[in-house]
Amino acid sequence: MAKREIKPIYWKDGCLFVLDQRQLPDRQVYLRCRDMRSVAAAIKDMALRGAPLIGGAAAYGFVLAAKALKGKDARRWAEQIEAAAKHLRAARPTAVNLMYSVDRMSQVTRNWFFQHAGESRHPDSSGSEPRLAPGRRETLINLLKEEADRIFKEDADANRRMADFGANLLPANSNVITICNTGALATCGIGTAFGVIRRAHELGKIRHVYACETRPYLQGSRLTMWELMQNGIPASLITDNMAAHIMATEKISAVLAGADRIAANADAANKIGTYGLSILAKHHGVPFYIVAPTSTVDLKTADGRGIPIEERSHEEVIRLGATRIAPKGARARHPAFDVTPHALITAIVTERGIAKPANAEELRKVAA
Amino acid sequence: MAKREIKPIYWKDGCLFVLDQRQLPDRQVYLRCRDMRSVAAAIKDMALRGAPLIGGAAAYGFVLAAKALKGKDARRWAEQIEAAAKHLRAARPTAVNLMYSVDRMSQVTRNWFFQHAGESRHPDSSGSEPRLAPGRRETLINLLKEEADRIFKEDADANRRMADFGANLLPANSNVITICNTGALATCGIGTAFGVIRRAHELGKIRHVYACETRPYLQGSRLTMWELMQNGIPASLITDNMAAHIMATEKISAVLAGADRIAANADAANKIGTYGLSILAKHHGVPFYIVAPTSTVDLKTADGRGIPIEERSHEEVIRLGATRIAPKGARARHPAFDVTPHALITAIVTERGIAKPANAEELRKVAA
Repeated sequence: MAKREIKPIYWKDGCLFVLDQRQLPDRQVYLRCRDMRSVAAAIKDMALRGAPLIGGAAAYGFVLAAKALKGKDARRWAEQIEAAAKHLRAARPTAVNLMYSVDRMSQVTRNWFFQHAGESRHPDSSGSEPRLAPGRRETLINLLKEEADRIFKEDADANRRMADFGANLLPANSNVITICNTGALATCGIGTAFGVIRRAHELGKIRHVYACETRPYLQGSRLTMWELMQNGIPASLITDNMAAHIMATEKISAVLAGADRIAANADAANKIGTYGLSILAKHHGVPFYIVAPTSTVDLKTADGRGIPIEERSHEEVIRLGATRIAPKGARARHPAFDVTPHALITAIVTERGIAKPANAEELRKVAA
Repeated sequence: MAKREIKPIYWKDGCLFVLDQRQLPDRQVYLRCRDMRSVAAAIKDMALRGAPLIGGAAAYGFVLAAKALKGKDARRWAEQIEAAAKHLRAARPTAVNLMYSVDRMSQVTRNWFFQHAGESRHPDSSGSEPRLAPGRRETLINLLKEEADRIFKEDADANRRMADFGANLLPANSNVITICNTGALATCGIGTAFGVIRRAHELGKIRHVYACETRPYLQGSRLTMWELMQNGIPASLITDNMAAHIMATEKISAVLAGADRIAANADAANKIGTYGLSILAKHHGVPFYIVAPTSTVDLKTADGRGIPIEERSHEEVIRLGATRIAPKGARARHPAFDVTPHALITAIVTERGIAKPANAEELRKVAA
């Protein structure tokens, strides 16, 4: 992992340490994940979040799964690995980076099995079960750890390239609006949409950032405001329902958002509220940019209708921390994401270039 | 005051009792306001809120100001009354019902002074100061109390008429979205937009209500959900940034909102977030209705640009109850209202009829 000021996850002593983002900004507490299930739980329970970071963490979860392999029976190992992949995939359904990452780790495992399974037969082998030579588990673990590091580094590199591409799109003295957290806490590098803001700020192009608080989880107020302040970027927090008023009364240069999954036709799923922002941006003639690595692009899903939208617990809407903010027994909805149709997206910024207009053809040029 | 299930304010033993809405839905605590300043403070600090209710409460604040008149010097009384009117007006700048109510109470006072001032001269009178006969204060107090009761009752009556007009606009099996609280807790009767929902529910026309939580004060989650549940109306709480997704994925028949001030050209100021909802409604082809009594119409203000938008404390955005939800020292914006241009309003429902389309001409027909 590259040197960075905020480490949302790191690997040490054979464990994955996860910064518990639910406790930010006030407490910086790391959870020590000793096994795959605790990584999956950290993803599911949102100790960590952000589509690219979820992908990175899941890769290390795979390494932990390999460390826990029991027995010497190759077939049983394969079953355990498959179960781990399934368990990690199920942690959160919307972000495709998770599936991308698990697929890559599974592929490394399959290749290794193909090469090594059945290479030794033990005397106690019953029948024709393929058995693995002693010490083989360590070579698999090392291969998986290398692949996880590679996924992590590739995302960090992608962040930097997106930041450069995206910063180019912004005019001087930009006031921008952003949603959720797409910075160092959401990725393996400087961030997606936030990386663009950070790079543009380095170039002296940012006048002010309006961070939508992003209910119900408040990633904007808790995480993005924290990163903005850490980077010395002038910014104001707004509640989500202020965005239209801000667009009407301030000169806004762009809305910048990340994505959890981009379908083949360039429809993009992202944090709940993104779709509404795209409509407000269109109404006010403000460019609306999605910034996401190509690992977020899911060419197998034709359009936004095919993207599963996670419905999370209603308690997360009715409670804020320890405080209940609605009457006892109140019903609520909690779609965690929404889909922005490509027609409302001015451009999609990836590490391989910009898809503009955001449509199937332009997306395929950068992501296929 | 008419018999009602929720009493946001009531008059008893010469004091105004104010339900402290900041403690709802968990605690029903009444504040006893013994003087005008405590009524103004209750308005300013949002123990009570809702444009029509603010108007009603301010009227009783005026009665308390009259009770506290000192001396027998008519000129000093007039000064004290004028100071009280000014103090009440300053409590909140956006809602015009407050100004409307204070104007009516001032007018009663002026008429009374015109009739009675200087009617008796006491031996201890220095120079030609007009003096008031003993017992006169009680007649003024009674007149003001009658006018306050009248303002209260008129608003309750207006609520019922708006409810009938508005319910007519809704189709069978309506799913509606509403913002803030516009019910019994915001008015002197059953409510404005909420009154329409309640009447439509009585008529069997409401399938489901989506209540926007309405950050930062959470009037939707704390107050509207409470009233919906009290009235047995099927409803779900949503965060404000879910409204677009709900419009895209559910069949929504209407968005219903109240107003704090409607300008002569039918631009309407209402709780922050209303403007954004109107844009989302237009995008999805959903009718957008403003429901407000004619006391909310301010024909002296030409258009929305002339409506002062209250900027409240940033702490109200950064904190939620006792919990700080952003980093220490974070900046925030807190416009408490926004302006919806009349072009985005399908119709304005008043107690005297419906202005449709919402423009200067139609508004004048019902409100002038």
